[in-house]
Amino acid sequence: MKDTEIRFNKIVIFGVGLIGGSFALALRRVCPELEVVGFGRSVETLRLAKELSVIDRIGEDLESEVSSSDLVMLATPVGKMGELMGKIAPFLGERTLITDGGSTKSDVVAAARENLGDKIAQFVPGHPIAGAELSGPEAARADLYQDRRVVLTPLPENSKEDVLRVRKVWEECGANVSELAPDQHDAVFAAVSHLPHLLSFALVHDIALRQNRDLLLSFAASGFRDFTRIAASSPEMWRDICMANRDALLRELKGYADELYAIYQALEKNDAEKLENIFSIARDVRSNWNQN
Amino acid sequence: MKDTEIRFNKIVIFGVGLIGGSFALALRRVCPELEVVGFGRSVETLRLAKELSVIDRIGEDLESEVSSSDLVMLATPVGKMGELMGKIAPFLGERTLITDGGSTKSDVVAAARENLGDKIAQFVPGHPIAGAELSGPEAARADLYQDRRVVLTPLPENSKEDVLRVRKVWEECGANVSELAPDQHDAVFAAVSHLPHLLSFALVHDIALRQNRDLLLSFAASGFRDFTRIAASSPEMWRDICMANRDALLRELKGYADELYAIYQALEKNDAEKLENIFSIARDVRSNWNQN
Repeated sequence: MKDTEIRFNKIVIFGVGLIGGSFALALRRVCPELEVVGFGRSVETLRLAKELSVIDRIGEDLESEVSSSDLVMLATPVGKMGELMGKIAPFLGERTLITDGGSTKSDVVAAARENLGDKIAQFVPGHPIAGAELSGPEAARADLYQDRRVVLTPLPENSKEDVLRVRKVWEECGANVSELAPDQHDAVFAAVSHLPHLLSFALVHDIALRQNRDLLLSFAASGFRDFTRIAASSPEMWRDICMANRDALLRELKGYADELYAIYQALEKNDAEKLENIFSIARDVRSNWNQN
Repeated sequence: MKDTEIRFNKIVIFGVGLIGGSFALALRRVCPELEVVGFGRSVETLRLAKELSVIDRIGEDLESEVSSSDLVMLATPVGKMGELMGKIAPFLGERTLITDGGSTKSDVVAAARENLGDKIAQFVPGHPIAGAELSGPEAARADLYQDRRVVLTPLPENSKEDVLRVRKVWEECGANVSELAPDQHDAVFAAVSHLPHLLSFALVHDIALRQNRDLLLSFAASGFRDFTRIAASSPEMWRDICMANRDALLRELKGYADELYAIYQALEKNDAEKLENIFSIARDVRSNWNQN
């Protein structure tokens, strides 16, 4: 790598799909001699990752692979991370860093505190913000993180140096790195990501159960298409995200229901001015928003 | 035009923006000698439409222009159509057809019954389904309706021949034409278009009023971008659509609130299986949907 501080010889990836696989491909581009070892639940997926040169080897012996690696990336569903942390904790070398790619952070941090024991300082939690409608090693791309945001949620136990090392790794992958507290991260993403996903799933589900579903869908156009694109996301992944970020998401749902009720009342009372006012505020904010 | 039955020498367009202007440009392409006269509220917009050759002339004398035209297209906001119909009704020739481009139909039909009097049979209501984030004559395009759907909601008073003539005009513009009853049309579009717009406006409005709005928006990504694209639509137009389709939209809002409440309860009770089931049904329907 460009920076002499960050010199990795070997990384271990748990979960070799879109997030973990793209991380490996991106790092390999800047660090050609890097050895990448992959672990995962599905032998088939691991073989595919190896065929596609996403990983160099399929890991077999957890102890020897983890103890000799510079960085461990947890890119499994967040619900699986606690158990995994418990398994690898005994084998973590003193200089081995752990990070993750989970979409929620308070739950992952709680799992880490429970399962990593006195190795907790070596875990720097992270969340790369990259679209997730695709999955699997075949979806992995070296440029997935180029100009994307990555949020780190460092722990009080982390050394400044370790946080900086993880930050630099992501910067080498092309990402713009920010830092938030774990609960702040979860509140932010409940509002701008998890709630919209729920709302989009809810709309399509609502239509899916109707007798005239096919008629309705035959007249749906580009507005519906964009609004519901995220309803094609993985049900398992979003079930896990919702459960993991339950409290923040319940608050968001409650607030949104209040908002809808206010709109319902305005419409019921023929308060056209109030509706226009709500739409105008939204239009102005949305039009002026520049995606990072 | 290709079909000898449909031979128009002159059309009058009320509202020379995206919908009316594109209609004129599309028709002119198949009918080069067509004379297009434009009326509108804004002199500036009319001048621009003329400069861009969207119309040939800016209309001045309502009586002479309307009485000598083969087709009148109403492409104004739906709230303005009733008054306009009352003004032009006395001048409609026996063979002059009227159609419109309004996004709601029951209200437009009611306005027509009130204002067109014994000329009601000459009005064949229509709704071209074409994206409306852009507006004005500068957004008009000859191919806007190519492969788009147009819904006609014929009246019992319409002759078969007149409905066929309006259908053929739209087909000449490249559109796929369907027919629905006006109230059926409004119920369908409340579900697949008007409700999603309301939900998208509501989400952005909810975020817009928060103190940490800028922080939230700085972490919003592609899911948010697509979900909220329609929240950049015209507040005036959507106020009018909501008011015009109020009853159907209130029913949709109520149904959606019930759906959200069921999701809220599942999340509150940690019912992961129910959430996954809802998401799976939505994902399957959305993934199998092929936009027309």
